[in-house]
Amino acid sequence: MKATGIVVEYNPFHNGHLHHLQQARLKTNNDVMIAVMSGNFLQRGEPALVDKWTRTKMALSAGVDLVIELPYAFATAQASDFAKGAIFLLDALKCTSFCFGSEEGSLKAFEHTYDLLTENKTAYNLAISTLMKKGISYPKALNEAYDIVSKDVTVPLVDLSKPNNILGYHYIEAAKTLHATIQPETIQRVVANYHDPAKATETIASATGIRKVLFDGANLSAVQTYMPPTSLEALYEWQSTANSFGNWEQFYPTLRFIILRHTKEKLAQFAEVTEGMENAIWNAATTCLTFQSFMEKIKSKRFTWTRIQRMLTHIYNDFTWKQLKETELPTYIRPLGMNERGQAYLQSIKKDLQLPLVSRVAASKENRLLQLDIKAANLYYLGLQSAFGQQMVGSDFRIAPIRI
Amino acid sequence: MKATGIVVEYNPFHNGHLHHLQQARLKTNNDVMIAVMSGNFLQRGEPALVDKWTRTKMALSAGVDLVIELPYAFATAQASDFAKGAIFLLDALKCTSFCFGSEEGSLKAFEHTYDLLTENKTAYNLAISTLMKKGISYPKALNEAYDIVSKDVTVPLVDLSKPNNILGYHYIEAAKTLHATIQPETIQRVVANYHDPAKATETIASATGIRKVLFDGANLSAVQTYMPPTSLEALYEWQSTANSFGNWEQFYPTLRFIILRHTKEKLAQFAEVTEGMENAIWNAATTCLTFQSFMEKIKSKRFTWTRIQRMLTHIYNDFTWKQLKETELPTYIRPLGMNERGQAYLQSIKKDLQLPLVSRVAASKENRLLQLDIKAANLYYLGLQSAFGQQMVGSDFRIAPIRI
Repeated sequence: MKATGIVVEYNPFHNGHLHHLQQARLKTNNDVMIAVMSGNFLQRGEPALVDKWTRTKMALSAGVDLVIELPYAFATAQASDFAKGAIFLLDALKCTSFCFGSEEGSLKAFEHTYDLLTENKTAYNLAISTLMKKGISYPKALNEAYDIVSKDVTVPLVDLSKPNNILGYHYIEAAKTLHATIQPETIQRVVANYHDPAKATETIASATGIRKVLFDGANLSAVQTYMPPTSLEALYEWQSTANSFGNWEQFYPTLRFIILRHTKEKLAQFAEVTEGMENAIWNAATTCLTFQSFMEKIKSKRFTWTRIQRMLTHIYNDFTWKQLKETELPTYIRPLGMNERGQAYLQSIKKDLQLPLVSRVAASKENRLLQLDIKAANLYYLGLQSAFGQQMVGSDFRIAPIRI
Repeated sequence: MKATGIVVEYNPFHNGHLHHLQQARLKTNNDVMIAVMSGNFLQRGEPALVDKWTRTKMALSAGVDLVIELPYAFATAQASDFAKGAIFLLDALKCTSFCFGSEEGSLKAFEHTYDLLTENKTAYNLAISTLMKKGISYPKALNEAYDIVSKDVTVPLVDLSKPNNILGYHYIEAAKTLHATIQPETIQRVVANYHDPAKATETIASATGIRKVLFDGANLSAVQTYMPPTSLEALYEWQSTANSFGNWEQFYPTLRFIILRHTKEKLAQFAEVTEGMENAIWNAATTCLTFQSFMEKIKSKRFTWTRIQRMLTHIYNDFTWKQLKETELPTYIRPLGMNERGQAYLQSIKKDLQLPLVSRVAASKENRLLQLDIKAANLYYLGLQSAFGQQMVGSDFRIAPIRI
């Protein structure tokens, strides 16, 4: 059996994801589709709309054969570490290829860009640090430095101002630096760009657009054209038990508590909190009553919104710089769900796995990265501030991988 | 002007407190009555029913002239440190005497007991540690050791199985070991013992009894016979803005979040958490949905209920063993409220004070103990989980000492 890997968040699963899944199957012509998926906190530094179990159900219903959890320490990391964790796991799972969506659509361009930036590493990094000293954000500095080093290049390069191209670039980089045997493939994304709002006349909208519709108070029927019926059903089921969708505004009272429970000095010890942001964060928590007003108070030219959200995610989950620096690569493979094909595939590679396969977390509860996953799951449920959330605490110990 | 000091929690202020206040005035015949009062967390390791500002209003309305905050590090400490912090402050405030309520009622008995235990210190401590090795709680060991060393004594001694006698003993001990010039006085408590339930036919009930009536769901009119009208009015005012009274059951979702946010190893670093209690606490938080069930799961013969609650208070407020060990004596005098007489007294002693007088916390916000008070106040308000609580965050910076 040959497997293709994808890296996903499915927040929530929609028609664009379905399209990607179908194209990836066509392109790689493999037997098994494996998704490495974030848990309850995501790369943009946000709590997920619905928990990892609900998103696993969505994935399996849409044809993914095996869902593996991307550990918290990678799922909430900057793009390069996020990519490294995900590609390492897909390689460890013996996938022959991984297939990512990109605005670009051509693998050649990614490879040219990778070669260019590797060959010009010193000049590129120097340009980035010079630009950042002027006070612009890291992503902006990356783009300007990239313009500088690519100025005289004639081969096609990737536009690294596009979010999926950036992630794609980091997947390629991860595969190269890990000396992985897994081979990259890319598929052009259709219609919706990452941040586009959902439009009533289309059947594909971005996850961001779909979340916006939901948080603006519309009911679920407003997003039904953008997702498969099984996804919509899973969202209805979640809503009927959890009452609300996970988002920072709802988690803010708890976040605020955590911030004010610590001194500013202590806040500076949490991962990604840097350059005096601990003062801004503490002061804003003292006065701001909503997450929106809090973010507006602390946002700065130096940091993107998502970078600040990642700081908050790490404060919320008690994840420190020290823990971040101790994090190298995933140390286990944790299936969240599978169908029969996924199960047969896991069975076939089991004896060759270099990492332990964690089906019951109780047996591996001393694993540091796994403890973080369990903790983040618990704190997500408690952030929901509902009877359902209270009951879901400890569910990692009780819920077995989903089988359909 | 001559001042008498008292040590209070007023949780809430009731007729027994009023009686004590009147008796203390008669007994000491002084001009000014100063209360050192706990902030939003109390010595039994509990959030207060109503915040420190509301309790200050109750105190001033009942005739206290000046209310000083007992810093968090002492207010939530074991009896000996609680007493040391309070007596030190009253002595620093130049009180000529302090007057405590006790089941005993005679100062002589306290002095005999103090002399006995000082003279037999080695034998007493040896007996305590021998008894504790058998697995009984610290208070029980104290009592049994006390029986051993007092076996052949003929002078009257204090019954140290009574809660107010224990506190009184520690006040005497604190005054002696601090070499304070302040003189002790005691008044016998009337009618209600500390833990007695409130009875409909009496006008004096214990604060514990009154709280029980309120938490059992009765409305405020059920406790009106036990307190002065001004206290009842303050409780009504609190209820109309805060919606609920502070208690662990209500704070439990937040406490649970905090516990599960930490590893067991980290939990062991919080003050008073000892002998593997971190494991019991973490495990119980994983499964228990109410504070009552949580406490029943972790209670043990080795620790009293209040000792365990103090552990939880310190976990909640991020107060560690390290911080506890660094705490020696109060480092400031913070008035929460005063009447004209209290103000005149403060004015008269101001120039002789050895400690800074903190009327605006912003000016002293680098003080470590004061930061703890501000934090505990904030976390108390957030624990209330209400719009009022959210708005009260940072109120230490906004509210000036109350003047009536």
